[in-house]
Amino acid sequence: MPDPRVAEALEVLERTPGALRGMLGGLSDPWLCCDEGPETYSPADVVGHLVYGEETDWIPRLRIILEQGEARPFTPFDRLGFRAAHGSKSVGELLELFARLRDENLHVLVALDLDAARLALTGRHPALGRVTLAQLLAAWVVHDLGHLRQVARVMARRYRDAVGPWREYLPVLDDRP
Amino acid sequence: MPDPRVAEALEVLERTPGALRGMLGGLSDPWLCCDEGPETYSPADVVGHLVYGEETDWIPRLRIILEQGEARPFTPFDRLGFRAAHGSKSVGELLELFARLRDENLHVLVALDLDAARLALTGRHPALGRVTLAQLLAAWVVHDLGHLRQVARVMARRYRDAVGPWREYLPVLDDRP
Repeated sequence: MPDPRVAEALEVLERTPGALRGMLGGLSDPWLCCDEGPETYSPADVVGHLVYGEETDWIPRLRIILEQGEARPFTPFDRLGFRAAHGSKSVGELLELFARLRDENLHVLVALDLDAARLALTGRHPALGRVTLAQLLAAWVVHDLGHLRQVARVMARRYRDAVGPWREYLPVLDDRP
Repeated sequence: MPDPRVAEALEVLERTPGALRGMLGGLSDPWLCCDEGPETYSPADVVGHLVYGEETDWIPRLRIILEQGEARPFTPFDRLGFRAAHGSKSVGELLELFARLRDENLHVLVALDLDAARLALTGRHPALGRVTLAQLLAAWVVHDLGHLRQVARVMARRYRDAVGPWREYLPVLDDRP
């Protein structure tokens, strides 16, 4: 019988493609391509990064834990790998691809039928050391939410000056909570 | 002829109801009702607050600027007014109400056909002093995005401990950008 933590995580994981489509689908390039300076992600980059995570990060690591435990450390994740893999795709294409890959990966997750004992299995992160499958699942959820937060922040920053005196009341413009 | 700033703001304003529905529609109460402590908003509270803003804040202030300029300061906005007005509604009802009110308000905004001269008109904020209509419009956009960011952050915080060593890599958990 699956652990209730799986269903709780699924609630968020299955909503992220729709949330991103709601925020970004059909937006013009000035919104999609704005960023916070060199080496930072634009909203478009975030979608590419999430696609690449579906392909190379979450489920592959989950399988490593289940099949090889701590014997084989995870492959390090390439934060910019999406540029070579998906740099030529439009944001609309990336949103669709993300939705499809996420759906496939959640079917894999559900089929694994993870109970408490399996969630306690451990793997080895190349930098962070020993981690449990439950922690990997929670990190997947938080990673999604962190990037939704980033998209909102990056877009808001475009109007940092445009709001005039309201800036004081809009903490997103200055990284206040 | 309307100023291009109106169309640019509209792109975000018209997407917020769908983005929120994508994030929150059908979620269970532990996700909808989590918050960051006393006097903080849960995701459910954010939707109520946004509904109340549609009813009492953005368009009413816009009309005050157009009709009365600085002669009449804006009515102060009640950050908790939504509790009395909408506290008995479900999140599903609030999401639908927000979508309907936002749609109506954006029709009002478009019909006003705001050009650069009207965007430069000024009003008086009860605390912030003189503001322009363009600044009000930009603040409306940033306010939406700030609350989307807040919803993502509040939800992510539920898993601050659950992610174990990944916390270091997940800045949303500690209010880092």
